[in-house]
Amino acid sequence: MGGYRNVKKVCVVITARPSYSRIRSALFALKNDVNIELQLVVASSAVLDTYGKVVKQIESDGFAVSATVYNVVSGENVISSAKTTGLGIIELSTVFGNIKPDMVVTIADRFETMATAIAASYMNIPLIHIQGGEVTGNIDEKVRHAITKLADIHLVATPKAKERVVKMGENPGTVYVTGCPSIDIADNVLKNYKKLKFDPIKKYNGVGNVLENRDRYVVVMQHPVTTEISAARAQTRCVLEAVESLPVQVYWFWPNVDAGSDGVSKEIRIHRENNMTKNIYFFKNMSPDDFLVLLLGSDCIIGNSSVAIRECSYLGVPAINLGNRQIGRERGKNVIDIPEYDVQSIVDAYGLAKQMGHLTSDLLYGDGKAGEKIASVISSLDKIRVDKMLQY
Amino acid sequence: MGGYRNVKKVCVVITARPSYSRIRSALFALKNDVNIELQLVVASSAVLDTYGKVVKQIESDGFAVSATVYNVVSGENVISSAKTTGLGIIELSTVFGNIKPDMVVTIADRFETMATAIAASYMNIPLIHIQGGEVTGNIDEKVRHAITKLADIHLVATPKAKERVVKMGENPGTVYVTGCPSIDIADNVLKNYKKLKFDPIKKYNGVGNVLENRDRYVVVMQHPVTTEISAARAQTRCVLEAVESLPVQVYWFWPNVDAGSDGVSKEIRIHRENNMTKNIYFFKNMSPDDFLVLLLGSDCIIGNSSVAIRECSYLGVPAINLGNRQIGRERGKNVIDIPEYDVQSIVDAYGLAKQMGHLTSDLLYGDGKAGEKIASVISSLDKIRVDKMLQY
Amino acid sequence: MGGYRNVKKVCVVITARPSYSRIRSALFALKNDVNIELQLVVASSAVLDTYGKVVKQIESDGFAVSATVYNVVSGENVISSAKTTGLGIIELSTVFGNIKPDMVVTIADRFETMATAIAASYMNIPLIHIQGGEVTGNIDEKVRHAITKLADIHLVATPKAKERVVKMGENPGTVYVTGCPSIDIADNVLKNYKKLKFDPIKKYNGVGNVLENRDRYVVVMQHPVTTEISAARAQTRCVLEAVESLPVQVYWFWPNVDAGSDGVSKEIRIHRENNMTKNIYFFKNMSPDDFLVLLLGSDCIIGNSSVAIRECSYLGVPAINLGNRQIGRERGKNVIDIPEYDVQSIVDAYGLAKQMGHLTSDLLYGDGKAGEKIASVISSLDKIRVDKMLQY
Amino acid sequence: MGGYRNVKKVCVVITARPSYSRIRSALFALKNDVNIELQLVVASSAVLDTYGKVVKQIESDGFAVSATVYNVVSGENVISSAKTTGLGIIELSTVFGNIKPDMVVTIADRFETMATAIAASYMNIPLIHIQGGEVTGNIDEKVRHAITKLADIHLVATPKAKERVVKMGENPGTVYVTGCPSIDIADNVLKNYKKLKFDPIKKYNGVGNVLENRDRYVVVMQHPVTTEISAARAQTRCVLEAVESLPVQVYWFWPNVDAGSDGVSKEIRIHRENNMTKNIYFFKNMSPDDFLVLLLGSDCIIGNSSVAIRECSYLGVPAINLGNRQIGRERGKNVIDIPEYDVQSIVDAYGLAKQMGHLTSDLLYGDGKAGEKIASVISSLDKIRVDKMLQY
Repeated sequence: MGGYRNVKKVCVVITARPSYSRIRSALFALKNDVNIELQLVVASSAVLDTYGKVVKQIESDGFAVSATVYNVVSGENVISSAKTTGLGIIELSTVFGNIKPDMVVTIADRFETMATAIAASYMNIPLIHIQGGEVTGNIDEKVRHAITKLADIHLVATPKAKERVVKMGENPGTVYVTGCPSIDIADNVLKNYKKLKFDPIKKYNGVGNVLENRDRYVVVMQHPVTTEISAARAQTRCVLEAVESLPVQVYWFWPNVDAGSDGVSKEIRIHRENNMTKNIYFFKNMSPDDFLVLLLGSDCIIGNSSVAIRECSYLGVPAINLGNRQIGRERGKNVIDIPEYDVQSIVDAYGLAKQMGHLTSDLLYGDGKAGEKIASVISSLDKIRVDKMLQY
Repeated sequence: MGGYRNVKKVCVVITARPSYSRIRSALFALKNDVNIELQLVVASSAVLDTYGKVVKQIESDGFAVSATVYNVVSGENVISSAKTTGLGIIELSTVFGNIKPDMVVTIADRFETMATAIAASYMNIPLIHIQGGEVTGNIDEKVRHAITKLADIHLVATPKAKERVVKMGENPGTVYVTGCPSIDIADNVLKNYKKLKFDPIKKYNGVGNVLENRDRYVVVMQHPVTTEISAARAQTRCVLEAVESLPVQVYWFWPNVDAGSDGVSKEIRIHRENNMTKNIYFFKNMSPDDFLVLLLGSDCIIGNSSVAIRECSYLGVPAINLGNRQIGRERGKNVIDIPEYDVQSIVDAYGLAKQMGHLTSDLLYGDGKAGEKIASVISSLDKIRVDKMLQY
Repeated sequence: MGGYRNVKKVCVVITARPSYSRIRSALFALKNDVNIELQLVVASSAVLDTYGKVVKQIESDGFAVSATVYNVVSGENVISSAKTTGLGIIELSTVFGNIKPDMVVTIADRFETMATAIAASYMNIPLIHIQGGEVTGNIDEKVRHAITKLADIHLVATPKAKERVVKMGENPGTVYVTGCPSIDIADNVLKNYKKLKFDPIKKYNGVGNVLENRDRYVVVMQHPVTTEISAARAQTRCVLEAVESLPVQVYWFWPNVDAGSDGVSKEIRIHRENNMTKNIYFFKNMSPDDFLVLLLGSDCIIGNSSVAIRECSYLGVPAINLGNRQIGRERGKNVIDIPEYDVQSIVDAYGLAKQMGHLTSDLLYGDGKAGEKIASVISSLDKIRVDKMLQY
Repeated sequence: MGGYRNVKKVCVVITARPSYSRIRSALFALKNDVNIELQLVVASSAVLDTYGKVVKQIESDGFAVSATVYNVVSGENVISSAKTTGLGIIELSTVFGNIKPDMVVTIADRFETMATAIAASYMNIPLIHIQGGEVTGNIDEKVRHAITKLADIHLVATPKAKERVVKMGENPGTVYVTGCPSIDIADNVLKNYKKLKFDPIKKYNGVGNVLENRDRYVVVMQHPVTTEISAARAQTRCVLEAVESLPVQVYWFWPNVDAGSDGVSKEIRIHRENNMTKNIYFFKNMSPDDFLVLLLGSDCIIGNSSVAIRECSYLGVPAINLGNRQIGRERGKNVIDIPEYDVQSIVDAYGLAKQMGHLTSDLLYGDGKAGEKIASVISSLDKIRVDKMLQY
């Protein structure tokens, strides 16, 4: 049998824009590894126009796409999230059956990544989970830990994350601390960009209003929280009212498709139609690099995105973190927590953020080499073990 | 709002024969609770003729069925297991959306129960998991623990199981030790039946051969192991050869639909067609009570079923446990472990089992009151908490 | 068996706003028939917020909804149309299995109505098809005739439609000319409304711009054509440019979810963002009655909707019909055909329409009593025949 | 654009054993055409072990398989037939989206072929339908004609079939009479085999009983009729009783998976277990060639299969055709119709068949060159037309 199948087929499933951003540096490293045949499967919101068609960006980055999968069931409510996951399992099991990967990589904790985890683990294909062991406060929490229990190999961001994964019963020998790959982009941005060299409004196709002087600006990224759907709209309204009153330009990023994004959209539409968003410009998509460069030039980020906690800690950008969505996540000194949604508190926090100014890099989530480390662990994985488990 | 909706709608999803057997005593208790509206959803192999159409037994036990769901995708391999689960999510989310339960109950760890867990947890319906925290050695292991991470309330069989669930990060206040409901049936059987009062061959529609004298007999229950599919057929052959050589009647129970059951069926067919099964009679289905009565009258049980470990420890029936499927599961003195499949080892173990004879009840898995305890915990669950989470 | 099951369960599946409008008068008649138990199943775009959540209108009309089904797969391309239909079959077969209708009614020819037709016909439930036998020029054509071949009873709009259905091999005794139920609403509107009594902009939640004087206006309804997807955007642009140049208010109705609607949306967005739509106001939804009242008060309708051909012939409202979508459909004198998309031709046709003015009612598509006739045919259907075919 | 894409990608979807048999000669011809890239997709029962895993035979015939699809939903009832079709659409649309065929070929009229027709036609891929325009008496009838209305090109078996297709409104220029490809195998068998040269029992893995002298034998092929499911079991019993009383060996072929096959299986099992099938041997599968050779050596065929009408008319083998399943199908002189299931009538018909003996070839369904003709039509199809329609 000697020498038979030297090359490992590693299949990475991408289901959303932020997942791609995070895994991108690792993908470049994997693509350059001669012992690895990289198989990219693009699914869920990553194939949809409404969410910026990530699949096009992937191809323009030079990656070949093995299969695209349409599995998003419309509704943007909790029923359609469940159905999207179910349809994802049905579709991905066919894809895996056809392209026969030696291992499957799934990223983080979006609800539909459960489809990747179930298809792979049920088909006895070794499952590698990136970014397990973290703690947040919503359905993602359940999904993340459930995937940990389905995965065979865990590539985590921090020692504390490793500790949690092991405590959940996983064999310590299967858990590797690689840092968070999202920090790699931040590292690159920090090293190569001093200031914003492009006009985001000219480069990216958005809608909204701009101030004459937009040298100073804040970035907003606010997601609906799936366990608080009814609150999503009120929360959006609060953030809108707060940033509408700031004396600077606001760049607002549209959230991913999720139960609740419907309410978010509605509230934004009402504000826009009533001409209340005079200093707000809305984007749907931006390349990961440009997005971080934009953040780097901002006064601060406002919202409940994990970008504020991870990338911004490394970039040293102040972050006004709203509500419970990031509760329990390890954080650096750049974070100002506003647990209750309140217009005045957000406005006050902006004052604080300006005073704080930009900080030095916090290495909490990695040192900018996660992509290489992830690729290196995957490359080193014991082939015999894999062969033993692989049974279509 | 005072007094609005006094009755909790509790939805129990049944997907296979053994799950029904285990939950049956709890279902009777729930049905008698005036504060609970019981909703039974019957899905997967429990609606199929090939697996004895459990749905008919449920109705003849006096329960109303709220919905039946056909979600088994044919193939009986790892791809079809994944697809069955995906289709289950799609179907169950529609059902839950229509019958709007206040909480959903899922039982144990069969692969397709993941569909119940995902549909309920994604829809923010409180999920109650029965029989989490146990340890075995196959894909069920992954499924069981992943469901624990998706569930809100855990009703476990033993203090050790509770310990494991808590170690995985669950709030101890959400974990209740109720004992295993399967022991309730064993308890009833032990109290009310001294000896076999019915002829299983006359009462149940099976196929195969019977010895003239079948006062002494053994029961076989052997499942394909999903992480060892290619071995399933060889293992079946080994068990067949061993029991064919025993001087007593053999009652063999057909396995559930699972990746690998195809290979099992083939091997059995070959033995039957070559007239090698002269002392073996095959059953597809039997009422839980009758099954335990049959076990109680047997010399021993042979195979890899958890019945051998749980119910038989309480019944005191010797169990010859084969291979790794039950590895790590807590066990009583009735179990003779045969880790490697070997004809002579099984034959020798039968000699040992006969010597051992029947033992006194081991309370390891409960005291026969699990059904009542489960119903009582569910009945007591804080309504406010549930209402807070429930958002369609 | 005498007298057993006197009441027929008639299940009507609604999948989109226009289907509901057309069947509404028949539904009221069916609801009042004591021999009929009406079961309404609402699916596809009719349950989605993005398309005006028709299900809410149905309930506010006083109908009980037996089940809602989320089966739209996102993508708005040809792949997602196919998948939406596949998922619809899966979901509807479960629903039919649970509510056990004696007959199923499907309306017209939208792609996803094939799901209703297949689920019902495969389950041997007698299928009643409304509006078969017509001729148009797109994928709807294929769908309509394929459904005719799956249906058992055909309720058609015109004698010519009957002729076509019979020519396709259907038994003439199963084909009934009832007129088109959409005319019933037109009839009611014509009898009871002389002029617009409500302000559409105040009553309905749309977006866009209004002229100071909007006494005169035109209505636009333009659908992407599924066999010309790549052209959909250019066609939309052409219509936008034409109506932007008219000296009157334009009320534009958003198209249904279809392969191609993505391109339509994009073009509209660009025009809006570039402030080119100064006289255009966009609606997503309107009650069928109000919509026809609005049409009745308009100078003309512009686009490629069948409303222009059917309802407007009865209302006597001039219709500028664009492209091939309605090719082959029988039409009255109110229709001005513009086969090639061309800005100037549309502008010229508007001049012609103004000259023409409103006409007297054309009875081509019915006399306003189709709803009653449909209900009466369904009520009279031979029970024995139905019972013979019905086998779950 | 000159010369761009010279090779047409022709995708043939195989969903069952008999479909493969019929299309096989055309597949060989297509494979040898340098202007055609043949894409084989194997789905439904053709991938299942229970139905003889046709996919293996396809590969051993030297064809490459582009994708396999598991879409059979278990249940073998009308609900699961509908769901199988729905899941087929979901799966096939992904496959078509990935392998991007220029045209899709679907064969005959099994219920699940509707999935092929819908996926292709909804995706605007030209659809070629083989064997449309025939007439039989069950759900296949509806399916066959509905597919005709979805198809773009029709390759039919007889001039009368062409006439019917045209009458249904199809453009005569799209309908080609090629003969039935099943006759090609019959032609080959007739030319090359004078008598049975192999022992079917030794060559094929079946079960059952054999007579000492089995020089004379009959072949049985009896399908459940989906519009008469409740009758399927009684019909099977009648055929069993009739052939059990014949003084010759019986070779009985297991039916395909269909609503109703469950009842058939049950009845056969009961007869076998009661030792009533002393002269019956059961096969699941046989190569198309061997099957026809077996037929050629038989006294007659008994049942309701279309093989009796088509292939046997060419082979000149007497056929006892039972019930309504083949009603309306054009037939030769070899057919003895027994419209009502009745044991004595079947026994009498056997006497008649023996008297009749083998006849000369009837060219009703073709001259043995259908495969070549089909390939030749497909090869000649106007590329421009195809390109115009093709829009993913």
